[in-house]
Amino acid sequence: MALQPIDYADAAPEVRAVYDDIKQSRQIKDVNNFWKYLAHDPATLKRTWESLKDIMAPGALDPVTKEMVYLAVSVTNGCGYCIASHSAAARKAGMSEAMFGELLAVVGMANETNRLANGYRVPIDPAFDK
Amino acid sequence: MALQPIDYADAAPEVRAVYDDIKQSRQIKDVNNFWKYLAHDPATLKRTWESLKDIMAPGALDPVTKEMVYLAVSVTNGCGYCIASHSAAARKAGMSEAMFGELLAVVGMANETNRLANGYRVPIDPAFDK
Amino acid sequence: MALQPIDYADAAPEVRAVYDDIKQSRQIKDVNNFWKYLAHDPATLKRTWESLKDIMAPGALDPVTKEMVYLAVSVTNGCGYCIASHSAAARKAGMSEAMFGELLAVVGMANETNRLANGYRVPIDPAFDK
Amino acid sequence: MALQPIDYADAAPEVRAVYDDIKQSRQIKDVNNFWKYLAHDPATLKRTWESLKDIMAPGALDPVTKEMVYLAVSVTNGCGYCIASHSAAARKAGMSEAMFGELLAVVGMANETNRLANGYRVPIDPAFDK
Amino acid sequence: MALQPIDYADAAPEVRAVYDDIKQSRQIKDVNNFWKYLAHDPATLKRTWESLKDIMAPGALDPVTKEMVYLAVSVTNGCGYCIASHSAAARKAGMSEAMFGELLAVVGMANETNRLANGYRVPIDPAFDK
Amino acid sequence: MALQPIDYADAAPEVRAVYDDIKQSRQIKDVNNFWKYLAHDPATLKRTWESLKDIMAPGALDPVTKEMVYLAVSVTNGCGYCIASHSAAARKAGMSEAMFGELLAVVGMANETNRLANGYRVPIDPAFDK
Repeated sequence: MALQPIDYADAAPEVRAVYDDIKQSRQIKDVNNFWKYLAHDPATLKRTWESLKDIMAPGALDPVTKEMVYLAVSVTNGCGYCIASHSAAARKAGMSEAMFGELLAVVGMANETNRLANGYRVPIDPAFDK
Repeated sequence: MALQPIDYADAAPEVRAVYDDIKQSRQIKDVNNFWKYLAHDPATLKRTWESLKDIMAPGALDPVTKEMVYLAVSVTNGCGYCIASHSAAARKAGMSEAMFGELLAVVGMANETNRLANGYRVPIDPAFDK
Repeated sequence: MALQPIDYADAAPEVRAVYDDIKQSRQIKDVNNFWKYLAHDPATLKRTWESLKDIMAPGALDPVTKEMVYLAVSVTNGCGYCIASHSAAARKAGMSEAMFGELLAVVGMANETNRLANGYRVPIDPAFDK
Repeated sequence: MALQPIDYADAAPEVRAVYDDIKQSRQIKDVNNFWKYLAHDPATLKRTWESLKDIMAPGALDPVTKEMVYLAVSVTNGCGYCIASHSAAARKAGMSEAMFGELLAVVGMANETNRLANGYRVPIDPAFDK
Repeated sequence: MALQPIDYADAAPEVRAVYDDIKQSRQIKDVNNFWKYLAHDPATLKRTWESLKDIMAPGALDPVTKEMVYLAVSVTNGCGYCIASHSAAARKAGMSEAMFGELLAVVGMANETNRLANGYRVPIDPAFDK
Repeated sequence: MALQPIDYADAAPEVRAVYDDIKQSRQIKDVNNFWKYLAHDPATLKRTWESLKDIMAPGALDPVTKEMVYLAVSVTNGCGYCIASHSAAARKAGMSEAMFGELLAVVGMANETNRLANGYRVPIDPAFDK
């Protein structure tokens, strides 16, 4: 049985409260599908949104950097929804096409050298811990 | 049969040339273990170094951002050597402990929501492609 | 060249024998696509079905627990077919929507803390092995 | 620079508060290394503990089932710390050796059939969404 | 904003040069979509093609073996595009259906036993390094 | 509680039977640690060995090719035990150092381009299915 997205009109008050906060925070008219599916478990919806608000707030890293890291992880894991969603979010936060190209080049290379390090069974240099 | 690292003193000229370039570029006295194991395949050693030089050079993204993305991928993939190595490289490039903490928080959260999106089988919003 | 599914009507006797056993075991009228593609390699079809019968039989863990674990792995790996297939199987075995929501919450959290443990390079506590 | 674990004696009040809650909840004398490293980022420490308390509480799924799912994900991802830690937690919650053996068999098989489904490019059966 | 593929007719000279080399090398009339998207970052397009030419050239391993390894990795990672693309490339290089079936069986089994080794926390035998 | 390896001398008859078959097949004096840990679940031990015997037997692919594919998957997944074990097995089956270097280069590159294909959201070319 495939779940259906829960639109604002059909949402319980506790879900609407989260939708309102997301829309207010992001200055958007409707939440995206991720939230509409997560709404099937209101506890998870709320906890996920609250965590994301904290984690993605500007801090020592700025928002566009955080969005690009999010995209890098999503590309590494191959989550199609997440790649589409976070590419859009990163562009909205200020990622240019040049930044995007460089980001993917780093992600590709890191995934390559991670396996070279695995395959050659490279021992950790003591110097890394000084 | 476990491979042994190839030190400069025992390296063929083509390998020494790459080691020299790495040391010159990074202003270090000796290359790390990753390169000493890759040296078993001089073609791979050279190609990997040349690619890394291009990809990690300052551009639309600055070096500390590139190193943090490299670390984010390594943490996602769980490569122990790479995590140690790129944590050191990122700190050397300017990543503070506050930046490191925020980076890991984003990486953790992204790995979580990637699976929530998978599990809820969320369809891609048309708006992401406008 | 894309392979086509092998339907019962077109299947060799050795494949039909496996299809019959699957249909009998699961009380279904037709096997799902996974088996119809695996049928291109009858040895793999047979070995996979025999292994699954053994592994998924009720034992110290009951069938719905086993199906939920199967779904947890599929969600972690991001296999779209497997998530659809095993969500259906888990529901058929008794997984309610409340169980499903809690399952995904655990899967998401585990994928997050796995990376936090990686990133912080946490050493294994001796107490875990007592 | 390798981070060091933060023991209770050296912890700031906000960190001690979390340690106290963990120790109280789990009826243990000292928190494990995961928390002692996470303590370098008190916001992440607190948020992770609060999320885990909610997610791992008994609900539609009981605690031993949740711990086994956590272990299944950790085994799939290959996180050595997490496998050690969650094997211990699952045993403490009631997982017998027979349950453990069956759990690993399911995890192994799921990781296998996930790739068979990928490799044979199996299309999702419409029946899964009815 | 979804990127569009860059066709030869719309490509800058530096991109056309790479397309020409790919078409000449592979004896094909048009490059596939992978290259048409990579073309958004001409440096990555060029570096990727040059690396692939070197890595996939006949050597101690022949081309069909290299293509099958490429497919094995793509199946393990679940990259849908890559599985389709490299299945075609491997067949073109000489992979028969029998070889394909055996390849997937090995890939599935390896993904299974990798997790059994993780879950049972098997220590490395000293004999492996003699 | 960490499991201990089960040596032949302490093994139940059903386990010894599998150990004997492994030792006979591989012409070795003692089984490696993987089997000694799997022996905690004799059903899994037996099923895994029987499957491996079938899957790894010479066929359309020869043994060294199968071992190299096994190693490629293990390197991709980062299983330390499996990389050590299957590097040894591949060398024993005939993999030279030159073959090993080329294998790792392909594995690294495939892991890189898999992510580039993900990140650029490349659609599958119709031509791949003709």
